[in-house]
Amino acid sequence: MSDDKPKRAWNFNAGPAGLPLPALERAQRELLDFEGTGMSIMEHSHRGKAYEGVHREAIALLRELLGVPDDYHVLFLQGGASHQFAMVPLNLLPAGKSADYIVTGGWSEKAVEEAKRIGTARVAATTVVDKKFARVPKQSELQLDGDAAYVHMTSNNTLFGTQFHEFPDTGKVPLVADMSSDFLWRKVDVSKFGLIYAGAQKNIGPSGVTVATHAANDSLYNTPPTFGIYLVRNVLAYTKEIGGLAEIERRNRAKADKLYGAIDAKPDFFRAPVEKASRSTMNIVFRLPSEELEKRFLAEATKKRMIGLAGHRSTGGIRVSAYNAVSIEAIDVLVSFMNDFAAQA
Amino acid sequence: MSDDKPKRAWNFNAGPAGLPLPALERAQRELLDFEGTGMSIMEHSHRGKAYEGVHREAIALLRELLGVPDDYHVLFLQGGASHQFAMVPLNLLPAGKSADYIVTGGWSEKAVEEAKRIGTARVAATTVVDKKFARVPKQSELQLDGDAAYVHMTSNNTLFGTQFHEFPDTGKVPLVADMSSDFLWRKVDVSKFGLIYAGAQKNIGPSGVTVATHAANDSLYNTPPTFGIYLVRNVLAYTKEIGGLAEIERRNRAKADKLYGAIDAKPDFFRAPVEKASRSTMNIVFRLPSEELEKRFLAEATKKRMIGLAGHRSTGGIRVSAYNAVSIEAIDVLVSFMNDFAAQA
Repeated sequence: MSDDKPKRAWNFNAGPAGLPLPALERAQRELLDFEGTGMSIMEHSHRGKAYEGVHREAIALLRELLGVPDDYHVLFLQGGASHQFAMVPLNLLPAGKSADYIVTGGWSEKAVEEAKRIGTARVAATTVVDKKFARVPKQSELQLDGDAAYVHMTSNNTLFGTQFHEFPDTGKVPLVADMSSDFLWRKVDVSKFGLIYAGAQKNIGPSGVTVATHAANDSLYNTPPTFGIYLVRNVLAYTKEIGGLAEIERRNRAKADKLYGAIDAKPDFFRAPVEKASRSTMNIVFRLPSEELEKRFLAEATKKRMIGLAGHRSTGGIRVSAYNAVSIEAIDVLVSFMNDFAAQA
Repeated sequence: MSDDKPKRAWNFNAGPAGLPLPALERAQRELLDFEGTGMSIMEHSHRGKAYEGVHREAIALLRELLGVPDDYHVLFLQGGASHQFAMVPLNLLPAGKSADYIVTGGWSEKAVEEAKRIGTARVAATTVVDKKFARVPKQSELQLDGDAAYVHMTSNNTLFGTQFHEFPDTGKVPLVADMSSDFLWRKVDVSKFGLIYAGAQKNIGPSGVTVATHAANDSLYNTPPTFGIYLVRNVLAYTKEIGGLAEIERRNRAKADKLYGAIDAKPDFFRAPVEKASRSTMNIVFRLPSEELEKRFLAEATKKRMIGLAGHRSTGGIRVSAYNAVSIEAIDVLVSFMNDFAAQA
């Protein structure tokens, strides 16, 4: 199965994560000489024609793939999504107003903590039980403030493996979503959001680039992370080439179905802590009957060049990150290993 | 002269700027498979062994090359040096204290503006005349506040082509230096500074990484720009290989001597606006007798694959950025062109 690319590992890292091989191969080919200019794209001025073309193409591809409405801007920023935990209230939370936060895991906890340093923020819903988050809240559980400056949510939770499959209805209050770990896993209706932001390092590029979709000035105030944005361009161009987000969503659903199928087929062995309705398509988490078995599982997987399957250090267990660049073939290899392991244990 | 690398351009960009070819070639070789791991370094977890090794090596190389004292930390940050214009006062300027700013160009003007939004900041010296900066101030011109929280300076000014060749004596007040455009052009005595920060995109790497040398916690709070830091590692390793900062300084001085020598040999044609004592080794600026001639100079240079010679859009004229990766050979090609152009004009 892996004969044609024997040297690549099966990469299930939670982020920075795998990137599509054709996007990397393109970067490798062009690394010393971008389009005959005699310079690497990272050696070009951010205000020169060569880089400007890449920057504009990356934005245009993102607009096209995601169907971003004309009255929304697309920005490439630095600082990581965590930096946005402060930037969102600094920009959107005026004195005298309050912001609502839906807390569904470690990242949204950090987001509301940061907002509280800057202004007034309240928890509009939380699904925490014994410090764990096994699900996302239902619409009926949200205690929304109709006067809030915005409602903040985290669409997918890498630590606990939960995901919103329908987005909250926040009425006239703008919805702000941190989509760092499931951005572009499928098409979403951008017009339902006031702001979407996402670190690139899961589905669309390397770490060091954050994408934001909202209304604001352009992203060339100072020098942007040009090579990172170039790589995002390569990933988006490849995404378009293989059929856009419809095809990406089809593959992601097939991958998640295979994995949850394997888990549910042996519920005494593969123990899924997340409620079915909140299961993430991006981060599939499960436990084995003992930590001893989990340790052995991880060690044997590593020997078979399956990388990144350990759960987050705060939660333990197994976590399969199945971002866009993870192939169905990689999931087949993993599922086969899971079944063999369960049979032998 | 250029026969052995016919495809590379002569890159005089002000930043993002050229990088050493061997550092880029190493990145190209390893792009799909970092040290036999079957993954690109940018696909590795920032908390995994492979990336951690690179991160630690980059810090160790920087410590070694620059001679960073043990009680100083080295951090790799995101956000660019402009981001530090806010971070410096946010971290170092307490209420009730004031900070001193030495204003020598557009970047230090921006730095003091940002500081004034956050706390109390005053201009301790400025060399502006008619909106231009032709020199840096002498020690005797500094009106320092002995109680200041810190003194901020910009060591090299890309826009106007000036540079501090001796650093101000600020007594017990910590000196904070933005070294974005001349970091690592030579060895400096780090112990004289409370904080040095620099965007990587001139002398040490791609845009998207900022280096800071000071005392603080580590730089893994959230995901660092891993591929950018990997490239910094490659550049630093190459710098060490060719003889460290002593050799880099020797080359930089030779390059600057050649360029200023060519300028001074024809002072009626090549008009240097900067006072000799403040001349930058990194950004060599000059004017020609008319804007018409400057336009022709730039057009003919571009035909000869000499890139990035236009002055900053706010100043006009010609600017040669001669950062570490610009070879003496490139300067020879440029000087020869300058002489030919002057002879024919």
